[in-house]
Amino acid sequence: MTHRLLMLPGDHVGPEILAEADKLLRCLMADFGLDAELEYANLGGCAVDAEGEPFPRSTQRLAEEADALILGAVGGPQWDGLDRDRRPETGLLAIRSALGLFANLRPAILFPELVDASSLRPDVVSGLDILIVRELTGGIYFGQPRGIRTREDGTREGYNTLVYGTDEIERIGRAAFEAAARHNGSLCSVDKANVLESSELWREVMESLAPAYPNVRLSHMYVDNAAMQLVRDPRQFDVIVTGNLFGDILSDCAAMLTGSIGMLPSASLDERGRGLYEPVHGSAPDISGEGVANPLATLLSVAMMLRHSLDEGALADRVERAVGRVLADGHRTADLAGPGVASIGTVAMGDAVVNAL
Amino acid sequence: MTHRLLMLPGDHVGPEILAEADKLLRCLMADFGLDAELEYANLGGCAVDAEGEPFPRSTQRLAEEADALILGAVGGPQWDGLDRDRRPETGLLAIRSALGLFANLRPAILFPELVDASSLRPDVVSGLDILIVRELTGGIYFGQPRGIRTREDGTREGYNTLVYGTDEIERIGRAAFEAAARHNGSLCSVDKANVLESSELWREVMESLAPAYPNVRLSHMYVDNAAMQLVRDPRQFDVIVTGNLFGDILSDCAAMLTGSIGMLPSASLDERGRGLYEPVHGSAPDISGEGVANPLATLLSVAMMLRHSLDEGALADRVERAVGRVLADGHRTADLAGPGVASIGTVAMGDAVVNAL
Ligand SMILES: CC(C)[C@H](C(=O)O)[C@@H](O)C(=O)O
Ligand SMILES: CC(C)[C@H](C(=O)O)[C@@H](O)C(=O)O
Repeated sequence: MTHRLLMLPGDHVGPEILAEADKLLRCLMADFGLDAELEYANLGGCAVDAEGEPFPRSTQRLAEEADALILGAVGGPQWDGLDRDRRPETGLLAIRSALGLFANLRPAILFPELVDASSLRPDVVSGLDILIVRELTGGIYFGQPRGIRTREDGTREGYNTLVYGTDEIERIGRAAFEAAARHNGSLCSVDKANVLESSELWREVMESLAPAYPNVRLSHMYVDNAAMQLVRDPRQFDVIVTGNLFGDILSDCAAMLTGSIGMLPSASLDERGRGLYEPVHGSAPDISGEGVANPLATLLSVAMMLRHSLDEGALADRVERAVGRVLADGHRTADLAGPGVASIGTVAMGDAVVNAL
Repeated sequence: MTHRLLMLPGDHVGPEILAEADKLLRCLMADFGLDAELEYANLGGCAVDAEGEPFPRSTQRLAEEADALILGAVGGPQWDGLDRDRRPETGLLAIRSALGLFANLRPAILFPELVDASSLRPDVVSGLDILIVRELTGGIYFGQPRGIRTREDGTREGYNTLVYGTDEIERIGRAAFEAAARHNGSLCSVDKANVLESSELWREVMESLAPAYPNVRLSHMYVDNAAMQLVRDPRQFDVIVTGNLFGDILSDCAAMLTGSIGMLPSASLDERGRGLYEPVHGSAPDISGEGVANPLATLLSVAMMLRHSLDEGALADRVERAVGRVLADGHRTADLAGPGVASIGTVAMGDAVVNAL
């Protein structure tokens, strides 16, 4: 059966790195039996420019028909002044919500070749391999009521609602327990249950799920302590599960620990395994158009897609091995090259991976 | 005029480290002309045990009469099972709110002698000296409505409200601009304005204050990026201002960057300069009763109190110099001693500081 893949290049370096994903996929189709067809659509700032809104109806229709989606990155300073409903980020939130992509998987892996790129001491991070499972379609990102209103005394207040139902917590909890069972068997649920009632319910539901996963050890940690422990000794963690906002903060922190933010993929999955795959890094307006962006996070996102949505685990392994070989051979984009080390551009790095397949 | 100081030992290591603050203060009174009187009251778990609630009326009365308060730490596993309104943390939130302690100042300083205790590479953290100004009496910690309720379909949901009014944002904003003017002149306001309306208003109010502080450079950063940048290159920051929840997370992260969490003091101030001073570290149930807790964060909190609430800057300098001398002489509590380095206990460390005054 032909897999329908939707490519969403997005803004700034997005199209540059997605061109490398396209190249990789066409190679897998031509030489390794991948049966897929690629379509393209607009999301983010480019969609605002072309169609007047960040998540156009045309994109939504194609997205709903796709088996998997690959996104470059959205956003940039030229759209910052727009109203909230026309901002690129709003398009990203809208596609997550419309497709029900509630489970965001963000691995934070230290590539042995890149240990010197981390700002942490090698003895603290070497071998780091943790996975953050972030709830992506609920919590304070989507809670109602929200807005800015004028109070009786004439001053204004801004307000947002953090809300989680037991059904939402159970759904992300199950995804996390399953991920922990595949990983190293321990799951740390992060909340702020000593202050927030929404976290109190979160913790209770996580506990209620534990008996169904006897091979997974569940623990709990407050979010402030989790931020400290990630810095102090990140390898104490295996899989972390948390809500939308805490996951936003902690997953970026964890990604930066590895020093290889240009290397980290992510998956956002719905209940049936359809997913949107994207690099953890953003649209990097400061280097866009220069052909120097690191495409490896995007190529590793393709690998995640092959494994999680297309059931092509062997091809996923092949892509990941090719990336490992390219690094071992000393190829580096500018973000990975230490002082005095020669670097190659986006296209050359994509070529190197394709050649190493 | 005699300063009235209220000592709140709290739980676990709290009384052990507060005994050293008591010793230091009595030495300053006897030999260095400090005019103060010390009273004691219960807060946290000890207050629940003795008086049935974590912030008793008796403590509140003494607190309201005091010029400054010194807190050890509250909390411990034996109170974890209690209802929310009887938990030690509830007492801490209640005293912050009752006294209007809206401005929480948390320095994250790397002591040169302790650079090896950080999990970050020395070239990334040496000389680190940043200050986090956290709003402490508003935001999602105190917002209404909040709770756990049953929905029409029979499932439950937990909900909290994040709310900030312009008056609250202006108040913490002014405190932060003033702190930045005293520090190195740059202020980074951290929010999530690309998703939250409450952050949108926060950012707008911070901008509106900037013209009144022409010597301070104001910038803005999203909280996820701030967590990354703290790990990547913390010295890019000078003073950070942020809301209650983001401040809880980022200040713990920043404190841990220094590797010297046993060294870091904090101040929580009201509008007139009255303050509650406490170490950043917690009540450490795992080492309580052993006489090994590091009292230096508490002694440095006393120095902050001398400077911010008692207008005794010269005495504050004297205490800070004494702590520096003790470290330079090689004295280390267990948390600071590297492998193979001899350590001293809580009382011996307190004595060393008093002797070095
Ligand atoms: C761009 C922004 C809305 C988004 C988020 O906060 O979820 C981003 O930070 C992310 O983590 O994917
Ligand atoms: C104990 C807890 C309620 C408290 C907070 O979240 O404010 C603590 O983490 C702190 O930062 O002082």
